[in-house]
Amino acid sequence: MSHYPLLRLKKNEDQRIKAGHLWIFSNEVDIAATPLKAFAAGAMAVVENARGDALGLAYVNPASLISARILTRNPGIVIDSAFLIERLRRALALRERLFPQPCYRLVYGESDGLPGVVIDRFGPVFSVQTTTAGAEKLLDPLLAALDELFRPTAVVLRNTAALRDLEGLESYTRVAVGTLPDSVILHENGCQFRIDPAAGQKTGWFYDHRDNRARLAHWAAGKRVLDLFAYSGAWGIQAAVAGATRVNLVDSSEPALSLAQDNAARNNVANRVSTVAEDVFDFLRQAREERQRYDIVIADPPAFIKRRKDVTQGVEAYRRLNQAAIQVLNPGGLLVSASCSFHLEPATLHDLLRGTARHLDRHLVLIARGGQAADHPIHPAIPETDYLKALFAHVDRSL
Amino acid sequence: MSHYPLLRLKKNEDQRIKAGHLWIFSNEVDIAATPLKAFAAGAMAVVENARGDALGLAYVNPASLISARILTRNPGIVIDSAFLIERLRRALALRERLFPQPCYRLVYGESDGLPGVVIDRFGPVFSVQTTTAGAEKLLDPLLAALDELFRPTAVVLRNTAALRDLEGLESYTRVAVGTLPDSVILHENGCQFRIDPAAGQKTGWFYDHRDNRARLAHWAAGKRVLDLFAYSGAWGIQAAVAGATRVNLVDSSEPALSLAQDNAARNNVANRVSTVAEDVFDFLRQAREERQRYDIVIADPPAFIKRRKDVTQGVEAYRRLNQAAIQVLNPGGLLVSASCSFHLEPATLHDLLRGTARHLDRHLVLIARGGQAADHPIHPAIPETDYLKALFAHVDRSL
Repeated sequence: MSHYPLLRLKKNEDQRIKAGHLWIFSNEVDIAATPLKAFAAGAMAVVENARGDALGLAYVNPASLISARILTRNPGIVIDSAFLIERLRRALALRERLFPQPCYRLVYGESDGLPGVVIDRFGPVFSVQTTTAGAEKLLDPLLAALDELFRPTAVVLRNTAALRDLEGLESYTRVAVGTLPDSVILHENGCQFRIDPAAGQKTGWFYDHRDNRARLAHWAAGKRVLDLFAYSGAWGIQAAVAGATRVNLVDSSEPALSLAQDNAARNNVANRVSTVAEDVFDFLRQAREERQRYDIVIADPPAFIKRRKDVTQGVEAYRRLNQAAIQVLNPGGLLVSASCSFHLEPATLHDLLRGTARHLDRHLVLIARGGQAADHPIHPAIPETDYLKALFAHVDRSL
Repeated sequence: MSHYPLLRLKKNEDQRIKAGHLWIFSNEVDIAATPLKAFAAGAMAVVENARGDALGLAYVNPASLISARILTRNPGIVIDSAFLIERLRRALALRERLFPQPCYRLVYGESDGLPGVVIDRFGPVFSVQTTTAGAEKLLDPLLAALDELFRPTAVVLRNTAALRDLEGLESYTRVAVGTLPDSVILHENGCQFRIDPAAGQKTGWFYDHRDNRARLAHWAAGKRVLDLFAYSGAWGIQAAVAGATRVNLVDSSEPALSLAQDNAARNNVANRVSTVAEDVFDFLRQAREERQRYDIVIADPPAFIKRRKDVTQGVEAYRRLNQAAIQVLNPGGLLVSASCSFHLEPATLHDLLRGTARHLDRHLVLIARGGQAADHPIHPAIPETDYLKALFAHVDRSL
């Protein structure tokens, strides 16, 4: 018998769990038998179906639409730092097999059996995000588990995700363990980058595009590259290191571009990398007027679609961006069209490029299609774990 | 005025063409104005819409469901070897940018503006497939264009595709130019392979999985690998070269495995590569009984679904294969689940892995998703150009 209280599902509401999913929605709970209100936000429960079969252990949040998230299908264990150490060990074993340097997303929520937890690793520095009340409640044993396994130089809690609102959690950034070194450095695809894990976007770096940047680097030698929404220069600087002759980084954020300039120098390509602090759409309008042309344009904007209701206007923003990007591309050039919006269907982005190419009378074909790097594993039962798109489009004169 | 006869579309039947597609179906033709029967199989025509606007030049086949395929949107030109040289030059420019060696699919049908034509290049040897009457009729100027650009050692016509039936074309293999050398060698991802372009499957090699094999090689060091439907050893031998400790190639074809053994020796990994000539399903049954375990299993079968009507039984075959493959995988192992069946939706393969993992009570996540290499560009308006799937699944004990 578990020492956790029961959370009972209504009849047949165990089907999604049996199919692999880990979430329980409020309308699926038999609240007559086990009232959600009896649970504190983040409390643990044994989930059982209407026949009384235990399905696993979950943490509960009565205030969230997602009432419970399953941590394990084994109902007979205890969720403590030993459990979290086992989870971290599994996650670590996968990353150590895949990556030569200790720089990766160490934990990617449900895909690593830790719903609501994201941990990025920059060598000895860790950035932790919790997006649910249940994950927040596990923070102390989680920090203990990180300490046991890694003895980190610093752990930053980067708890500013908008998702936290839905769980009734506050937004904060805090160095929970140790002291942040003056320079936090990560390695990706043979390059080095300095980041600011306490002040940057999300955890300070987007490891998810690692493979897509490696692919682009493969094709960058001798090219003139435009990197839009460049942030700290991940795409453009890797292209420069791979031999691009000229790289133009455009971003509206001065602090991001200042970091990017430092990173260009750090990788010995400062003489081929320039930065423009400007709104990307404004920049593209002027570049077109000036008949600027590039061999490669990278369009990897922040999510234009944050919620489902934003799909229509978001798709229009992606369309405008990609059209303007194609208009500054040389014939036979390469467009990298990326999106991190979960709500943008891959087929929609694909079709948007088709339509834009016809509108501009270009011959456009897709020469590669990339997704998340392997440290962001996709859980096949949970569509939300699968969000990143990168289409590599060769754009030529009409046939 | 073009010297080609007119093919007129019915009202509004130009919409798909304007959206980027290149095919015209028989029911879209205004046969009162321009009878299809008036065209010989493979004859050229100017396609115009119901208002009389010329849309481009197409070749026609009155005997096919796809009545015409557009070669160019410019109605004012002539389709001759000069035209074909320009098409080949464009296709070549893209490949030369992408690949260090002259080993690739040089022409991939509609995506390269040459509907019905596929050309694989193995250095100085070319393998040409034509799948339509129109493409067949272009063979002479196409061979002249190849000669002009490449002076090939040999050109093999590998015209055995089942699609040719639908166009009323016979099946044949013929060396049309030069003489095939004793050894035809290709380079892929730093390895060398000998193939038989006159007797092997399709053109003798499947360049489409190039990137997926490179990805696997990245993760193969120190691993025990099982390569199912191994054919001439492309996956397994590349894994061995990348440091796999043991590679087992299974295929029912003795001639294919004999080529594979030769290729293992050619790449200096014969001591780590063994072959089993057996039906793959029989092999897996016995391997499971013997409790054989592998760190990596590659399941890349020939198309189980050749036509739409085969979807149900084909999906069941993919399910059985993937289940049996997972059953011989070590905990924390990697399954490469591939399919070249256009009629198998990516989401179906994804869901099949989800269901199989639950059925076997495994924690399965997708750490990468690959598609066709860049020499098989996807035409965004033509779904048939997008067929290859490779899911990389990390399979561990249940969470």
